Amino acid sequence: MTEVKRQPPHAVGILGGMGPAAGADFVRLFVQACTRQLHEQGRPVHDQAYPEHWLVQLPMPDRTQALRGDPQSPLGPAPHLLQGMGRLAALGVRSVALACNTAHAWHGQLQALFPQLHVLHIARQTAAHLQAAGARQAIVLATQGTYDSGLYDAALARHGIAPLLPDAAGRTQLMRGIYEGVKQGDMALATQCFGAVLVPLLQRHGNVPVIMGCTEIPLALPQAPQALGTQLIDPAWLLAMALARDAYGLQAQESEHAA
Amino acid sequence: MTEVKRQPPHAVGILGGMGPAAGADFVRLFVQACTRQLHEQGRPVHDQAYPEHWLVQLPMPDRTQALRGDPQSPLGPAPHLLQGMGRLAALGVRSVALACNTAHAWHGQLQALFPQLHVLHIARQTAAHLQAAGARQAIVLATQGTYDSGLYDAALARHGIAPLLPDAAGRTQLMRGIYEGVKQGDMALATQCFGAVLVPLLQRHGNVPVIMGCTEIPLALPQAPQALGTQLIDPAWLLAMALARDAYGLQAQESEHAA
Repeated sequence: MTEVKRQPPHAVGILGGMGPAAGADFVRLFVQACTRQLHEQGRPVHDQAYPEHWLVQLPMPDRTQALRGDPQSPLGPAPHLLQGMGRLAALGVRSVALACNTAHAWHGQLQALFPQLHVLHIARQTAAHLQAAGARQAIVLATQGTYDSGLYDAALARHGIAPLLPDAAGRTQLMRGIYEGVKQGDMALATQCFGAVLVPLLQRHGNVPVIMGCTEIPLALPQAPQALGTQLIDPAWLLAMALARDAYGLQAQESEHAA
Repeated sequence: MTEVKRQPPHAVGILGGMGPAAGADFVRLFVQACTRQLHEQGRPVHDQAYPEHWLVQLPMPDRTQALRGDPQSPLGPAPHLLQGMGRLAALGVRSVALACNTAHAWHGQLQALFPQLHVLHIARQTAAHLQAAGARQAIVLATQGTYDSGLYDAALARHGIAPLLPDAAGRTQLMRGIYEGVKQGDMALATQCFGAVLVPLLQRHGNVPVIMGCTEIPLALPQAPQALGTQLIDPAWLLAMALARDAYGLQAQESEHAA
């Protein structure tokens, strides 16, 4: 048997802690995405075929709260995101994924400060994926901070997709599911909150794709009876797939860079 | 309301990649263990209450294979374990968990080289836990490398617990479940192999505790019908709990240090 001589994969990093359960789940998704890459390339799957990867989970001040005040406040997440990125960069990683949608409000600053590495963008990956799948509109479930920063609005607009958002009551319900539910380990409450938000949106817009635009939402929404049969889109999975492609040196989706 | 001024938790590290799915799962267990610690201490659970933690997953040469030859071979895992530990140490972590039972064959060398940090020992944590629970014997399911190194034999003996091991055919079956099953993503095969190994051991020894002494085994054995009603012990969970205690600066189980 001859074996093609391949470049070893690149080291990549994951910046998490927002929250820690979502960060841990993101590593699981990344490993799964690597397994899929290996299968797609027809390569044998074994421990040594996976890229070096680092996860740092830092006690990170609340993102949504910071976005309601001064995003550059020394009491906000900005300095922590920077020190985490700095240490990941020192470890020699080529690409970094932020395991938190809301934290992408700081994406531009992080990418500008670390031009030697690629900071992936969760909303652009998601928008590119949806466009490729032919979507023209999508429901966006997210934190208040993500809504405030217009993260998905901007990314979806660039790909010709109309964002459909819950009303104020729905947003409050989402925040409750995220903060009192997932972040405190009460998954039943989270499932109930997330499911309830979905109903009026689906009634109004029909069975359009549902972007689970906060890494805590996929930990509880899929278990809701109201989510049965809906097109749930997990941006964390799309981000994990993009990070795996970067690790294996495959062409990044040009749509992200074009965006 | 008065709030007790607490020391911030210590940063801790996880050395993984052996395999990557098990390493990812170990982070999940660690976050869960931290949540339990917070609950037990009556502290509020939120993102910022979790300790800084780092995971590195490195492409690591096979441990069992190395233990059949020269454990210090430059082609084996030793240099990779050392470089991973060195970088975790440079990041300032106080304690490190090795997310692989077999890799504990190198535990003594790693602890000796990095006296500034605590390298937790998975088998000693497990043995101390079983002794506290009153166990006198336990079935050990592990890789051939772990059996060869006598990891659990030594740790259990120090705690007055007799190890019960599968025969040669059972060990071959276990290795198949680990390597052709979990490590290649074929969970159905893994569940079938692990379940089959359990049957003769339970018939012979009765319903004694079953140590899942390879981090891949808990990913598939609990789903086996033969495991229903058995006392499955997950050393990775006990290790995650010990790492959480270290992070929060709580007394380590003295039994580990006495061992």
